[in-house]
Amino acid sequence: MRIDIITVLPELLTSPFEASILKRAQEKGLVEVHFHNLREFTVGNYKQVDDYQYGGGAGMVMMIEPIDKCISSLQAERSYDEIIYLTPDGETLNQRIANELSLKGNIIMLCGHYKGVDQRVRDLFITREISIGDFVLSGGELAAAVLADSIIRLLPGVLGDETSALTDSFQDQLLAPEVYTRPAEYKGLKVPEILLSGDFGKIEEWRHQNALDRTQKRRPDLLENQ
Amino acid sequence: MRIDIITVLPELLTSPFEASILKRAQEKGLVEVHFHNLREFTVGNYKQVDDYQYGGGAGMVMMIEPIDKCISSLQAERSYDEIIYLTPDGETLNQRIANELSLKGNIIMLCGHYKGVDQRVRDLFITREISIGDFVLSGGELAAAVLADSIIRLLPGVLGDETSALTDSFQDQLLAPEVYTRPAEYKGLKVPEILLSGDFGKIEEWRHQNALDRTQKRRPDLLENQ
Repeated sequence: MRIDIITVLPELLTSPFEASILKRAQEKGLVEVHFHNLREFTVGNYKQVDDYQYGGGAGMVMMIEPIDKCISSLQAERSYDEIIYLTPDGETLNQRIANELSLKGNIIMLCGHYKGVDQRVRDLFITREISIGDFVLSGGELAAAVLADSIIRLLPGVLGDETSALTDSFQDQLLAPEVYTRPAEYKGLKVPEILLSGDFGKIEEWRHQNALDRTQKRRPDLLENQ
Repeated sequence: MRIDIITVLPELLTSPFEASILKRAQEKGLVEVHFHNLREFTVGNYKQVDDYQYGGGAGMVMMIEPIDKCISSLQAERSYDEIIYLTPDGETLNQRIANELSLKGNIIMLCGHYKGVDQRVRDLFITREISIGDFVLSGGELAAAVLADSIIRLLPGVLGDETSALTDSFQDQLLAPEVYTRPAEYKGLKVPEILLSGDFGKIEEWRHQNALDRTQKRRPDLLENQ
């Protein structure tokens, strides 16, 4: 898989992709991630990427021309399965979308900033608009990092233990059950006895019931949508 | 405001806090952000922060002792309004929660990793569990960065233009209207004429209708919840 991220702030994105799982996935050759600085696609000395919005009002708007140039230069090299715009008014990211995108080959992610991009960018280039949630961020960079992380960890070979991702929350519409590790007692607080019993049949039963109870209590909507 | 982030991967978090709005907010003294490496609170040479889960199964669990030590050392210095655990099975972050948290003084954010933290950490220390959405990430670090960003940009003085955050999506349960900037025509695509008219009353009307239409089409659930 190849992910191209278009941004006015590539320096914001460096550390998440240089640590831990995202780093290892790139080192193993399972994914290539490239950042593209929109300012390199501007015309004129000011490297202008944004301008006042037509009709007045607070907040700048990202201009179409540098974005067109950047996307066109990428498309001249290879074809893309999706050109995604990260925006709070897009489709809300969930595990199903992450699973689906993890099967794609080449993806462009465009990070919005300020008041967002000129609407014509969305009409002309974008194949999918994704929001990571009903809240507003300073820009699309962290949203792109989140989206990339949610996808990349699903690629075969990225996580050490293949079964690990499959037992995460949301993969079966249930929240994960409570987990415990050593010590068995800490300042008087004990691990549930069943987990120490060695009876794996009963442990599985307990975990399933615990996952169901937790989902019922915290997120009954997940059970209704099944 | 002061935010303390507890993590096993502080190096993952550096760049988002050293760029753009989060950097300026710290430079202006509007927020202090501190990272705490959980490995510095371990006992023994292995700097062990996780261990196998009781009852068996894939994935490691973060141990209670280093977390207890880290949180206790912070609490010895000052009192905290919230100790937040970032976890996919927490309360789903939205703009209302971001607004609410932006009014707090001192916040701890604990980043989960692997299969999550020992349940006793949650029972003993955590005052609030927050998820940024129904998807799974490699760890809580990007979720903490997202939560911090959503809060910090709301602090008075952080954004250049105070009115800018108030016209974002979600602040009034409506998605933002379409925006346009120069040029007025690009490769045959024109900006809606009304936005060039200079009639600000009509422009406001158009924007409100556009916001309503977009919300109706994309996120009718936002209108129902009003």
